Amino acid sequence: MFALDPAFAATSQFLADLPLCQARLQLDARYPWIVLIPRVAVARELEDLSEADRARLMDEILAAGRAARAAGTALGRPVEKLNVGALGNVTPQLHVHVVGRRADDPAWPGPVWGQGEARPYAPEALELALGAARAGLG
Amino acid sequence: MFALDPAFAATSQFLADLPLCQARLQLDARYPWIVLIPRVAVARELEDLSEADRARLMDEILAAGRAARAAGTALGRPVEKLNVGALGNVTPQLHVHVVGRRADDPAWPGPVWGQGEARPYAPEALELALGAARAGLG
Repeated sequence: MFALDPAFAATSQFLADLPLCQARLQLDARYPWIVLIPRVAVARELEDLSEADRARLMDEILAAGRAARAAGTALGRPVEKLNVGALGNVTPQLHVHVVGRRADDPAWPGPVWGQGEARPYAPEALELALGAARAGLG
Repeated sequence: MFALDPAFAATSQFLADLPLCQARLQLDARYPWIVLIPRVAVARELEDLSEADRARLMDEILAAGRAARAAGTALGRPVEKLNVGALGNVTPQLHVHVVGRRADDPAWPGPVWGQGEARPYAPEALELALGAARAGLG
């Protein structure tokens, strides 16, 4: 049975359940950042997914990219480049980060993972980001 | 027409042409690290690939994972976790990194990108890594 690692609950907020993944908004106002967690019992690497689920994951990575772009635009900071990463060195449950980047963001051109402290969203900005991301996920 | 960005030639060595991607070994002995570059004319984001090519890319990411594992084992440092990333903040031509990680590697648990300087392979280790990675791709 699928159970979300509590680490995700602490750092991100529920957006939607897609056909394969739970999509969540990372609670870090520095970047429009979507986390996709496949709702399968035990998966740590991409190879642990079935071929059908890997195809679903690819589709949902594209949807998360649209969601990150929509959130970035809603916040007045349109996304210039998407970064997609499946790392799992800290939280082993399989998950994929889809992050909207800009040349003026704090970690550019480096990766966002492990860089500085998350910056909380102001309440209104969080509502904007959640609404735009949900609409972007379609 | 596809042309490899010269940045890849400077930092990696040809392994094989897969159905979609050119696979290359990153010349950094700290990690068994495969770079996949789709051989399509102009692609910067995953969404620039056709659906068929995205499916090929997912297959080749799995093959690159097997190649990284094979290289790590050949070098006496079996891979414990795969990291997969499509960033492109520095080199915009679409490419995917597949990196074999260990809890005792120099960047663990952070990402490898932008961390320290690449460490050159000794000639014999390079031959071992290239041979094992090619066998793992195949």
